[in-house]
Amino acid sequence: MDADITIIGIGPAGLQAAIHAARKKVKVVAVGKTENSALMKAEVENYLGLESMSGRDILRVGREQAIRFGAEVLEEDVIKLTKEQDIFLTVTDSDREIRSKAVILAMGISRAKLNIPGEKELLGKGVSYCASCDAGFFKGRPVAVIGEESEAAESAILLSEIASQVYWVHRELKASQHMLEKVKRTKVEMVPGKALRIVGDPTVNSLEVEGGRTLEVNGVFIALGAKGSIELALDLGVMPDPSGMIAVDGDCRTEMEMVYACGDVTGNPWQLARAVGQGCVAGENAAKAIRQGK
Amino acid sequence: MDADITIIGIGPAGLQAAIHAARKKVKVVAVGKTENSALMKAEVENYLGLESMSGRDILRVGREQAIRFGAEVLEEDVIKLTKEQDIFLTVTDSDREIRSKAVILAMGISRAKLNIPGEKELLGKGVSYCASCDAGFFKGRPVAVIGEESEAAESAILLSEIASQVYWVHRELKASQHMLEKVKRTKVEMVPGKALRIVGDPTVNSLEVEGGRTLEVNGVFIALGAKGSIELALDLGVMPDPSGMIAVDGDCRTEMEMVYACGDVTGNPWQLARAVGQGCVAGENAAKAIRQGK
Repeated sequence: MDADITIIGIGPAGLQAAIHAARKKVKVVAVGKTENSALMKAEVENYLGLESMSGRDILRVGREQAIRFGAEVLEEDVIKLTKEQDIFLTVTDSDREIRSKAVILAMGISRAKLNIPGEKELLGKGVSYCASCDAGFFKGRPVAVIGEESEAAESAILLSEIASQVYWVHRELKASQHMLEKVKRTKVEMVPGKALRIVGDPTVNSLEVEGGRTLEVNGVFIALGAKGSIELALDLGVMPDPSGMIAVDGDCRTEMEMVYACGDVTGNPWQLARAVGQGCVAGENAAKAIRQGK
Repeated sequence: MDADITIIGIGPAGLQAAIHAARKKVKVVAVGKTENSALMKAEVENYLGLESMSGRDILRVGREQAIRFGAEVLEEDVIKLTKEQDIFLTVTDSDREIRSKAVILAMGISRAKLNIPGEKELLGKGVSYCASCDAGFFKGRPVAVIGEESEAAESAILLSEIASQVYWVHRELKASQHMLEKVKRTKVEMVPGKALRIVGDPTVNSLEVEGGRTLEVNGVFIALGAKGSIELALDLGVMPDPSGMIAVDGDCRTEMEMVYACGDVTGNPWQLARAVGQGCVAGENAAKAIRQGK
């Protein structure tokens, strides 16, 4: 099939890009798997205008909006993305081929996993990969942070001002000395050892640590870092920056002509509002570029 | 009063900045007049997750969210903004003085006005200053565009694909030759002359043009350009770019240390989603800077 713009990813950034591009009357196809969006497991209360809503519902409504404005939304995995002359070719796991004049990369990031029992089952039920997103849900309750680097230290410090108790479970510490000094001035309790198992039903109530210690916590923050889902970008020839993210300018343009990027794949902060804002900018500018070429 | 961060403006960018900064447990004061937000007169249907909502309601809910996260929101006009050593001083029309370590500029823009009868009364009832925001509401209905420059040409072209009929009312044309050629290839009808009066009750039904012609239209798009409400930024010493907007980097930092900016005041596209995205980024980064200094 032919399109003006192919959007890779149907999380909040991709869907908002689809809404804004389709409104400008260019042909938009957005393709991806909804279940891959980090938003699917989130409860949102920090997004302007929505008091409280599940990420799942936001994506459902957003998808309907994109379709209503004229975008096509395909629930298919993209397995290949290439460029030949001025045309981008997107191939999905259904053997569908989409040819387009522009591409918007909105595939999100994958958070590094611990791969311990309970992690997957309790995600969104006490397990989180983002303290700055979810800390507020644990006001006055005990939590644990798992990780070794400065990201884990930052998470522990932020949580120390909100949670009733904060355990920092770590093996070999790699956070900066400066961050470690700051942690010392808080109530964070250091717990050396490997995290073994997250327990709870239906929500987290404890974390088992190597050596037999069990921490009674309602939240477990896994802060091991993240990487962009950039394999497709690499195939295309768009290089990630040193932190593994796709660099964009203020118009959400990448280094490659007619390739835009938006959302978590472009870096921090990993927040719904930012994803949506960048989706808007990428969609508007990609559509403008298409219209100018028409 | 003392704060960590003062936010100037309580439209969508300012409120989202307040939400994200306050979540990080720094002291946030947001100050401005709600009625000054361009969103107050808007109906929104292109913002991810909200099928349809009035701008007024989005601001009401957003304000409650900001307060719930711990921000203080003051309905006061800022009349002075200065910096002495490392402290910013914000003075309001109630003679209140706010001292803070960081400032987020979120004052929005003011659209150039025609100042003709009906313009103010029918704003949001058929009169719009943003074709790319509101074109979709006029599907299959007749509209007029008023303006002389390329912005007006772009608006007319976009509307020609959506509206049933498009009149471009203009005096001396200043749009680029390239844009004028593109307009010629559409169904846009050129109407030379000065716009005199917008008529309708409760919504627009006609536009009177110099020379006695009355255009039967349901929408009137005024495309005369815009300028940032940058007087306060100038007082502070933050210089606008050549288009009159405040330049920011990807972290919403301005050229002045501890001064951030977000929303319409930083330039196009003037969309709710983008304002909210930038508000998130400015709020997160200003709070991060405060916390690092603590």
